[in-house]
Amino acid sequence: MHFTEVIARKRDGHALARDAIDLFVNGATDGSIPDYQLSALLMAIVLRGMDDEETAALTDAMLRSGVRVDLSSLPGTTVGKHSTGGVGDKVSIALAPLAAAAGVIVPKMSGRGLGHTGGTLDKLESIPGYRTDLSVAEFLRVLRDVGTSIIGQTAALAPADKKLYALRDVTATVESIPLIAASIMSKKLAEGSSALVLDVKCGRGAFMKTEADARALARTLVAIGRQGGVRTVALISRMDAPLGRAIGNALEIAECVAILRGEGPDDLQALVRTIAARMVMLADGSDADAAARTVARALDSGAALARLQAMITAHGGDAAIVDDPGRLPQAANRRTVAASRNGVVAGLDAALLGAAAVRLGAGRERAGAPIDHAAGIVLEARPGDTITRGDPVLHLHYNDARGLDEALRLAESAILVDEAAPAAPPLMMGWIEDQ
Amino acid sequence: MHFTEVIARKRDGHALARDAIDLFVNGATDGSIPDYQLSALLMAIVLRGMDDEETAALTDAMLRSGVRVDLSSLPGTTVGKHSTGGVGDKVSIALAPLAAAAGVIVPKMSGRGLGHTGGTLDKLESIPGYRTDLSVAEFLRVLRDVGTSIIGQTAALAPADKKLYALRDVTATVESIPLIAASIMSKKLAEGSSALVLDVKCGRGAFMKTEADARALARTLVAIGRQGGVRTVALISRMDAPLGRAIGNALEIAECVAILRGEGPDDLQALVRTIAARMVMLADGSDADAAARTVARALDSGAALARLQAMITAHGGDAAIVDDPGRLPQAANRRTVAASRNGVVAGLDAALLGAAAVRLGAGRERAGAPIDHAAGIVLEARPGDTITRGDPVLHLHYNDARGLDEALRLAESAILVDEAAPAAPPLMMGWIEDQ
Repeated sequence: MHFTEVIARKRDGHALARDAIDLFVNGATDGSIPDYQLSALLMAIVLRGMDDEETAALTDAMLRSGVRVDLSSLPGTTVGKHSTGGVGDKVSIALAPLAAAAGVIVPKMSGRGLGHTGGTLDKLESIPGYRTDLSVAEFLRVLRDVGTSIIGQTAALAPADKKLYALRDVTATVESIPLIAASIMSKKLAEGSSALVLDVKCGRGAFMKTEADARALARTLVAIGRQGGVRTVALISRMDAPLGRAIGNALEIAECVAILRGEGPDDLQALVRTIAARMVMLADGSDADAAARTVARALDSGAALARLQAMITAHGGDAAIVDDPGRLPQAANRRTVAASRNGVVAGLDAALLGAAAVRLGAGRERAGAPIDHAAGIVLEARPGDTITRGDPVLHLHYNDARGLDEALRLAESAILVDEAAPAAPPLMMGWIEDQ
Repeated sequence: MHFTEVIARKRDGHALARDAIDLFVNGATDGSIPDYQLSALLMAIVLRGMDDEETAALTDAMLRSGVRVDLSSLPGTTVGKHSTGGVGDKVSIALAPLAAAAGVIVPKMSGRGLGHTGGTLDKLESIPGYRTDLSVAEFLRVLRDVGTSIIGQTAALAPADKKLYALRDVTATVESIPLIAASIMSKKLAEGSSALVLDVKCGRGAFMKTEADARALARTLVAIGRQGGVRTVALISRMDAPLGRAIGNALEIAECVAILRGEGPDDLQALVRTIAARMVMLADGSDADAAARTVARALDSGAALARLQAMITAHGGDAAIVDDPGRLPQAANRRTVAASRNGVVAGLDAALLGAAAVRLGAGRERAGAPIDHAAGIVLEARPGDTITRGDPVLHLHYNDARGLDEALRLAESAILVDEAAPAAPPLMMGWIEDQ
């Protein structure tokens, strides 16, 4: 089989057989197929699509391009979690210790922030001393001792994805549900957990702008999980305004601590509890009410907070930040953005606020760029709040003033004040489950 | 403008502006845009198309990637000719001297054969001594002295096409009317003639399999010519059976000599006369009847044959082949394929016969491979002929027997004998002219 024939079949709208997909993925991984042929096929996939069977075969081939973590030695059920990414999305950092305190083993490999969305690794690294580069042996030990560990993705997992993602990024072939789904699921399946909970974001601050696209992606992800033998469920949730009140790495860690104290913003609290309960259901088969009670006990008893402390300690981090958030990096400067009129906060555009936070140093435009863990934005007002002209809406935290003007411009344009609050869609828009 | 934005625009179905197309073509020519980005855009163009304006801008950018031949010093009207290629298509070699004898200056740059179709350069090089690699200065001198010259395309013309064609060939992005049209017309416009006659083939032995595709390509080619300021007309002609009776380089030269003697197969004779008359009409504005009479005189007087001899001599070739075709390379061996039943020849599949001729050594599967000028196939019977079992249908000429078995298998499968001849579509299916 010549690779040009594989490209031509997809170009002409046919489904690719497993051997053709293997040729593609193996050739990408070992470099035997040149980039110009890979990118031609990628564009044909973007425009012609892939059915569920092809997408599952693609995921499987990408999974087999590397190693799969063996979690079988762990004494309990492992449930992974993944979010498609948003602004202020610090859910995993509160969720993982909470679910662990509720009896679930939560192994999690995360990525860094890029563009307007943050990354779990960057947030954790704002905790002084926290190491995200544990070996797989250390990862397994922390999982056994603490019940959860969050580390960086190792290069040994799904190397085909790393290669293909880099090529997609420079060939305008990122926007494809089968390619996005295979990229996500090859890594998640390689992490080796028995079940998976996915949080598929939709809205202005998410990669999927529409609910229809988010549902299509969620259905594809769940189908791949089924074909891969990993029970997978996906929540569809809104990402129009930032999640919670904090954007920025250390600021978000402090908010996670508040959540595990039973405090913190309602939306974030609800999302963390809901996903944690679903993980409990997957782990021990309990029903929704029982799972919610288990989660509430783990929170109210302080067990969840203790797990966070234990995880930080096991990763070499300063667990005293839990009792004294002032030990987290603090920005030297603040600037408040005030309301320019009376009314109701009708919207706080997550994409614009994410971009503003990047300008303040909280994120990066290109992979590998340094970030300022202390920088970020705190939301004083939230959508639905009634405000008076001059009231503080946002607080910008920064050390380096070079991006301040642009951040202010973006932040101001992110605030929408109107006569009345629009009817807001619910934060959580339902679950996609295995059929 | 980032090139990924250009790719994304075409991916999303938008038209590309001239500056985006210039970035593409200039980046391909100077190597500043990597192949993997070029091929992603090529696939997006294959699947999303280009409108006439984009295609004209693409052609123009490819034309401007190299030099344009200046024919303004020639004392008369120059009319170029191009065929999209077929099996046994030796039209240009008889046509160019005929049109020159009828008063048209015919500058022609040609390519080599690849796959099942032959190439004009290979055919001419079967004439002992004939040089196809004249300099532009020599080309102009022959055009001035003889009225026609057929040479190889120089690398200085449309280098972007050479680069892009090589990439399209290995990325399954050949099949696109805008890309095919821009490739053809960038080279033809670079040749510098005042008008162009195109022969767009359709059928089993042609690149365009259907009449609809051939008409769409022809319309695009004519539109590009108009936008480029070169009056362009296109004939749609059938390529189901080979043209004439000869396939193979020296065999086809001998058939061209016969045509210029007023002999030779009817279909080839008709096509050569029709295209020559159209070139006369474009050159001097005469009407169809007058042009046909001019062409008939050029043939009947022997002037056309004399021009062929003069062209061969001017290119360093052995013009004595005109009076003694035995001086052309002759194959050592013959093999006859006979009819396996009584009936009427209902079809002689040009694609299969072209492939059979390649196996005998008359063509090449990959660019740069050597060919045997003497090898080929002569058609004893033609579609519509009544035959009896055992009658010779084809004669295979070869020196090297290594490909004989496969050639015989292909040749036998190319012959379709039936009870009656099907209603054959006309060889010439009409002209596409500037609107």
